[in-house]
Amino acid sequence: MCGIVGIVSTEPVNQQIYDSLLLLQHRGQDSTGIATADGAQFHIHKGRGQVREAFRTRDMRALLGTMGLGHVRYATKGDAANEREAQPFYVNAPYGIILIHNGNLTNTRELADDLFHKDRRHMNSASDTEMLLNVLATELQGEVSGSLDLDPDQVFNAVRNVHERVEGSYAAIAMIAGHGLLAFRDPYGIRPLVLGRRTAGLVGDEWIVASESLVLENGDYEIVREIAPGEAVFVTMQGEMYSRQCAANPRLVPCSFEYVYLARPDSIMNGISVYEARLRMGDRLADTVARYAPLGDIDVVMPIPDSSRPAAMQVARKLGVEYREGFYKNRYVGRTFIMPGQAQRKKSVRQKLNAMGSEFKGKNILIVDDSIVRGTTSKEIVEMARAAGANKVTFTSAAPPVRFPHVYGINMPTRAELIAHGRKIPEIAAELGADHMIYQEVEDLQAAITEGTSIEQLDLSCFTGEYVTGTVTEEYLDWVERTQLS
Amino acid sequence: MCGIVGIVSTEPVNQQIYDSLLLLQHRGQDSTGIATADGAQFHIHKGRGQVREAFRTRDMRALLGTMGLGHVRYATKGDAANEREAQPFYVNAPYGIILIHNGNLTNTRELADDLFHKDRRHMNSASDTEMLLNVLATELQGEVSGSLDLDPDQVFNAVRNVHERVEGSYAAIAMIAGHGLLAFRDPYGIRPLVLGRRTAGLVGDEWIVASESLVLENGDYEIVREIAPGEAVFVTMQGEMYSRQCAANPRLVPCSFEYVYLARPDSIMNGISVYEARLRMGDRLADTVARYAPLGDIDVVMPIPDSSRPAAMQVARKLGVEYREGFYKNRYVGRTFIMPGQAQRKKSVRQKLNAMGSEFKGKNILIVDDSIVRGTTSKEIVEMARAAGANKVTFTSAAPPVRFPHVYGINMPTRAELIAHGRKIPEIAAELGADHMIYQEVEDLQAAITEGTSIEQLDLSCFTGEYVTGTVTEEYLDWVERTQLS
Amino acid sequence: MCGIVGIVSTEPVNQQIYDSLLLLQHRGQDSTGIATADGAQFHIHKGRGQVREAFRTRDMRALLGTMGLGHVRYATKGDAANEREAQPFYVNAPYGIILIHNGNLTNTRELADDLFHKDRRHMNSASDTEMLLNVLATELQGEVSGSLDLDPDQVFNAVRNVHERVEGSYAAIAMIAGHGLLAFRDPYGIRPLVLGRRTAGLVGDEWIVASESLVLENGDYEIVREIAPGEAVFVTMQGEMYSRQCAANPRLVPCSFEYVYLARPDSIMNGISVYEARLRMGDRLADTVARYAPLGDIDVVMPIPDSSRPAAMQVARKLGVEYREGFYKNRYVGRTFIMPGQAQRKKSVRQKLNAMGSEFKGKNILIVDDSIVRGTTSKEIVEMARAAGANKVTFTSAAPPVRFPHVYGINMPTRAELIAHGRKIPEIAAELGADHMIYQEVEDLQAAITEGTSIEQLDLSCFTGEYVTGTVTEEYLDWVERTQLS
Amino acid sequence: MCGIVGIVSTEPVNQQIYDSLLLLQHRGQDSTGIATADGAQFHIHKGRGQVREAFRTRDMRALLGTMGLGHVRYATKGDAANEREAQPFYVNAPYGIILIHNGNLTNTRELADDLFHKDRRHMNSASDTEMLLNVLATELQGEVSGSLDLDPDQVFNAVRNVHERVEGSYAAIAMIAGHGLLAFRDPYGIRPLVLGRRTAGLVGDEWIVASESLVLENGDYEIVREIAPGEAVFVTMQGEMYSRQCAANPRLVPCSFEYVYLARPDSIMNGISVYEARLRMGDRLADTVARYAPLGDIDVVMPIPDSSRPAAMQVARKLGVEYREGFYKNRYVGRTFIMPGQAQRKKSVRQKLNAMGSEFKGKNILIVDDSIVRGTTSKEIVEMARAAGANKVTFTSAAPPVRFPHVYGINMPTRAELIAHGRKIPEIAAELGADHMIYQEVEDLQAAITEGTSIEQLDLSCFTGEYVTGTVTEEYLDWVERTQLS
Repeated sequence: MCGIVGIVSTEPVNQQIYDSLLLLQHRGQDSTGIATADGAQFHIHKGRGQVREAFRTRDMRALLGTMGLGHVRYATKGDAANEREAQPFYVNAPYGIILIHNGNLTNTRELADDLFHKDRRHMNSASDTEMLLNVLATELQGEVSGSLDLDPDQVFNAVRNVHERVEGSYAAIAMIAGHGLLAFRDPYGIRPLVLGRRTAGLVGDEWIVASESLVLENGDYEIVREIAPGEAVFVTMQGEMYSRQCAANPRLVPCSFEYVYLARPDSIMNGISVYEARLRMGDRLADTVARYAPLGDIDVVMPIPDSSRPAAMQVARKLGVEYREGFYKNRYVGRTFIMPGQAQRKKSVRQKLNAMGSEFKGKNILIVDDSIVRGTTSKEIVEMARAAGANKVTFTSAAPPVRFPHVYGINMPTRAELIAHGRKIPEIAAELGADHMIYQEVEDLQAAITEGTSIEQLDLSCFTGEYVTGTVTEEYLDWVERTQLS
Repeated sequence: MCGIVGIVSTEPVNQQIYDSLLLLQHRGQDSTGIATADGAQFHIHKGRGQVREAFRTRDMRALLGTMGLGHVRYATKGDAANEREAQPFYVNAPYGIILIHNGNLTNTRELADDLFHKDRRHMNSASDTEMLLNVLATELQGEVSGSLDLDPDQVFNAVRNVHERVEGSYAAIAMIAGHGLLAFRDPYGIRPLVLGRRTAGLVGDEWIVASESLVLENGDYEIVREIAPGEAVFVTMQGEMYSRQCAANPRLVPCSFEYVYLARPDSIMNGISVYEARLRMGDRLADTVARYAPLGDIDVVMPIPDSSRPAAMQVARKLGVEYREGFYKNRYVGRTFIMPGQAQRKKSVRQKLNAMGSEFKGKNILIVDDSIVRGTTSKEIVEMARAAGANKVTFTSAAPPVRFPHVYGINMPTRAELIAHGRKIPEIAAELGADHMIYQEVEDLQAAITEGTSIEQLDLSCFTGEYVTGTVTEEYLDWVERTQLS
Repeated sequence: MCGIVGIVSTEPVNQQIYDSLLLLQHRGQDSTGIATADGAQFHIHKGRGQVREAFRTRDMRALLGTMGLGHVRYATKGDAANEREAQPFYVNAPYGIILIHNGNLTNTRELADDLFHKDRRHMNSASDTEMLLNVLATELQGEVSGSLDLDPDQVFNAVRNVHERVEGSYAAIAMIAGHGLLAFRDPYGIRPLVLGRRTAGLVGDEWIVASESLVLENGDYEIVREIAPGEAVFVTMQGEMYSRQCAANPRLVPCSFEYVYLARPDSIMNGISVYEARLRMGDRLADTVARYAPLGDIDVVMPIPDSSRPAAMQVARKLGVEYREGFYKNRYVGRTFIMPGQAQRKKSVRQKLNAMGSEFKGKNILIVDDSIVRGTTSKEIVEMARAAGANKVTFTSAAPPVRFPHVYGINMPTRAELIAHGRKIPEIAAELGADHMIYQEVEDLQAAITEGTSIEQLDLSCFTGEYVTGTVTEEYLDWVERTQLS
Repeated sequence: MCGIVGIVSTEPVNQQIYDSLLLLQHRGQDSTGIATADGAQFHIHKGRGQVREAFRTRDMRALLGTMGLGHVRYATKGDAANEREAQPFYVNAPYGIILIHNGNLTNTRELADDLFHKDRRHMNSASDTEMLLNVLATELQGEVSGSLDLDPDQVFNAVRNVHERVEGSYAAIAMIAGHGLLAFRDPYGIRPLVLGRRTAGLVGDEWIVASESLVLENGDYEIVREIAPGEAVFVTMQGEMYSRQCAANPRLVPCSFEYVYLARPDSIMNGISVYEARLRMGDRLADTVARYAPLGDIDVVMPIPDSSRPAAMQVARKLGVEYREGFYKNRYVGRTFIMPGQAQRKKSVRQKLNAMGSEFKGKNILIVDDSIVRGTTSKEIVEMARAAGANKVTFTSAAPPVRFPHVYGINMPTRAELIAHGRKIPEIAAELGADHMIYQEVEDLQAAITEGTSIEQLDLSCFTGEYVTGTVTEEYLDWVERTQLS
């Protein structure tokens, strides 16, 4: 998971990109980078950790120019601390291109081979972003004609060829030196990308593309639309905007996990308010709870702060049970220092959550979480509730059981580590130590997200094991798990 | 406002102090410091900003020893970035003493004079902590006898003399090289300090003192008791604990603002659960609302995350109105970089809070905040609610109007900057742009905090202008405001 | 002026490259960089200042691999602190190439145009090294055939084309990812580059190329030979060495300034011992002194430490006058800090040199310097000698008057700033405040350097104004001076 | 060995102290520190390594004030990297005192005991400087009277008591907050300290004290005189200078090693020009060489750069043999990085010195070094000369055999590590691999240094084993060697 933003402005963009990345920080905190274009010259700064740690005044001052892009990264594979994988990436031929990307390519083995053997392009990292950039560069090279100009058609032809070579999820933003900013989204629109415009008086239009709409709203940009699946948008350095559908058979299949957990609730994504989708998840989860749980057994409904609050609030309201916040979330996290001669101590969830005794003592508690992946945190939460004096503990998840890997850009453990992989629901309850365990139904999740829209399909692969891109086979999943572990 | 912790353990304390400071981080984020005692040798490391920024592995490795103390600092006066003011402070005679302190001395002008003229002690900062340390050092010097030993009586005599020389609020922890850890609290117990013990098998007892009880709970310490007003506790390096009442007329008058805003809800302070005190503030605020507000006018009750949630939840429950979370809090804050030739841009509250449109549209909203100081944030919140489509906005505060400075260790603006200073409540409503404005009554705040305890008096000075220590006169407040501004 | 080294080894090369750069540090102290190849993956680290400041342990640990190259840089143009200009440079297509370079290209205006318009290659700096790399990359791209292999012939063809496109001085080392290390020298061999070999037992040969032979000697490499003018050497990652003459009309015209000042005395360059060349400069300067100066007027001969010692020693010996070291060189230099409200203070040569009074008092001094460029230091030295009590001061230079810019890789001021530009020798003496001024003759310098070798021509352009590459016209020099100043 | 400087000026002193430390940098490169007094407030900054590494702009800007002192440190004992030992040291009672010190106390065991038991003063390091400061502080405390003023007599009384408690060598500079700058020297004047004055127009006098006179000369100060053995000088912040002899039986016994090796040749120390003393050492060494060596066997005389040049030049002149510089000194030193799985490699002297072949080939060489301590470097130099083709090698030392530890402030190995300890001269020659070995005679060294002065005695203890302070017994030397090694 990553967050991306690109801006073509009429004034310096460094602070605006920085502010946008702060608003996208929840999408990744492992590393971050900004690149700007000052005429034909690029300026890049990358750093580890969060935005506010990575950029100092002198870094910001060097990021000159009125066009730029920025990235926050949650390491999807490999070592989070590997600076080699930090985005943006740059190639100098043709033209000079800088690219950032949210998503995950699923045919990297073929791509690596082709880029090495056919295109003679050197990959200096294991990053699929570097591959995507080089495929784009190769295809743009093929469009180079005698004329010096680069017209939008050439750019769009290159993106069309990229769609043909690359599989997986990708929402990408690139800068072409001296020419403009390019944004494109995979033919299924799995990862989000939204386009905005702001009118800068007489000077002309300013354009923004970003992972989430709240970035636009915060910058006083008007939301123009989502970039369509397969579509490419090219904005020249002078602020002229061109767009074209570049995919053969585009079809919108957005990632359901954005609505479950990833996105900020105040974002609108593919026309759906994330906050309201979460409220609807709560409504539908309440129905399932009512079907399966002895309601007399529930005294209070409690969220795990912060992400499950909207769903929990609706569960409480619909069940007519009181909503209480019994868990306090500690905002400040630190490190465990390995002293010479000491073994690593495990940080427990107690460093992050604390239970307010009076809300638990003698009560039957229904806990609402947004989703359950490994289950280790959930297990500690149940223990914490019991230690605080809870009588019965019903654990619920606003998302269905996660039983398969997510290969489209979200870091997930191997199948064997998923608590729901190969377990029935009562077995999961036993594993967590809960009295009852209730999950959202897959159909309910789909309906809660798409209600009132024309969206027909969602990527629900981590719940169902059905992957929309053909290359994701059992053999592929085995390979991913092997290479992730090595 | 600061957070402090001190530990006498049977094993290295560096990680334990670090973890404790993370749990106290909400009490101060301007600077932090840890000191440890390795036999008679002290190790100190201080740094700017939050705990996780200030300590690197090599800093931690150098903090050897089984006794230590730590501090997080919220600059009460002067420049937050002034490293000279960072705690702990050290003097090498007599014995070698390191001290940290939460609170604020109110007779610093007299102290500075005495220390310079009578005691010939050099202050190398404007910090009242350095003064407190030097008063303690002078008084300990007076106790030095022919014998080499330092017995607890000598230490307690020195603290008794400190109480006589010093006025204001102070919860302090000190280490005396080669001897032990000393903790003491001012005769009114204005600032909190709690004592805990953990039995380390056959090895003996381990002792902790900290600003808040959750530090003890998290470290699996048993809560022994609050350090009493005027009391001193001395724990030798071997883990023997001694205590004595060192003040002439001790009387518990704890700071009410701890319950309103400062302390973590999962702390128990002077026997009062902070969380439950806040729930009771909500109950009593609901009564006041019911008295003054046309209830038909209220569709939903909303907290300002995070601190007003408990109160807001009770307001909603008691009024029988729906509780909704319409504001989303952005966790990631960054900086505004001043580029050459640019003017400073003001960061608005919109960087920190965002409104969820659907919760506001066409509704009458009752907003609950924990307290209102300058009012600038509240004003922006009202604007944000209106921009999101709210119909009527009632703004309420779980604390009474703040009309006077807080001189006991909380950074507050000058009187002229307090929105409630010299304004009647309808004038405040007008200033904020709210339709109604409702404050907690002072008596209700007192009752909400002390209900079910034997505590007779609270420090409510910032609401009432009545200061428990005699030195706080009009002339003093004028002087503080002058020197703060210069 | 820069120093370069490249190694193909059988074991990790990072420390060896680091040690080599320390030995080349006198050739440049503005920035430094090392790149290594670990199989097909490159690792790069660059930093400001000297080698020992720029590389920390973690930087070194990341420089994995058995092939590598390193660079120390003396900024020839532009801002020394501009990290954008720091070498090595990298392009990822074709193959992945990293290049470093000592020298200066004189047709950069044409190259920039061609690379932008014809080759669509983006230059992200003003560095001629980036241009040289991109010309090489373009030419290698032209050699890419259907086969995956890269044979030495393809590499040599590319270098041949580089020679045809590029003018100026260049000794360059490149790594081609997965293939090997390439070293080549311009068709006049203006800048030095020497090849060495070390036999690593059964494992095979190890190869080194470096700016100066002492690097080879120090690493126990056998000196194989200078890389010939126009020649290219390609060493595969397996240690097989190939070489070919790639220039149409190669002719050795080495830079005379290496012998005058740049190179370390313990290096052998183009078969000439630098130390002995300097001794011969002293012999010949002595003859000139004997011709022009009243010998009775000279009591002692003195060098300016460190570089003029060999020449001075020979002047003394041949004139039969005593050799004394009256100037002490301070090794430690620091900065002038601009405090707010202060003007910049000028650091005088007195921070670097000090005069030993007893060696000057009442004596007639003959001072030997290696060369005189601006003359500001020389003037201060004369003043210092007089202040120390010298009677008469004769100032001599082991090199002829510098009257023209050096365009082949040595940073020189504009013509107007050269003390000898447009001045006759007595005018220079007057300007410096010396009683006599004696310069080496151009023919003597040439003879001193080339004596006993078959070298027919030297680059003496800064003394004569005759440039061996045709592009250096009056118009070019004007352009260089204009752009240097802007 | 350390270098110290203190200044009372009429303008900010930070840059002046920084520049002075650069000139003293040869006296210590392990750490450095500056303290300034801005009225009664002190500012301190310390750092590792050389001056130019330790001070950044923001550090310098914080060093406000017109009075200040600075220190460069060569670790005499313990871990060079131990920041705890870095000077200056500070105590806050009485008055606030900051102190720096060059030398070594020899009764630290007694002092530590007294300070702990009698004075209740905490030492937070093993530094004898911290002890010296605390003894001074205790004695000043004893002088505190009813009156607020501190008159020079009180200060001088305290210094008198310090002389009675402390043994060893010490040249010290202290600042007393709000009062002035104090400089004093031990009763034997073992370590140097010189006083200078500069008239600042109408504003008044400026005063400086420093380890070496060249600092004064460089800052345009007039040399007033050496601080006498046992004397104290006190300069008020207003620039009034007071001085008094504070020792009972002062007697000048300066350290001979300053003249042999430590001091810069352009300094004048105790009225003796260091440069000329070294010339005289050469003259006298030449006589000894003439007595013992077959002169026909010597073709050239060669120095080891840089410190033995003056002596070597005189040896050559007096013997009538040619002087040649066959060794080149590399100025740039770096580190050996320990890579995982690698063993530490030993850096040989070849990293620092290189031999110019033509000066050695077939010749009989007489090498002059300033002194020989461990002999490891000398041995490598002999090997290097032979490898370069030398025929016979005569090794000479301008100082006598070093056979005993130096306890007065110069870091020396234990006796067992001294090559001359327990070896006769032919055995040393054999150990070094030299054909002949000739040392200066002790009487000649004494005469060379003191010639033309009234100085009757020198500290020659490391050559003779006779220590001027009584506490240095065999038992003491054993203890020092034990604790140094542990």
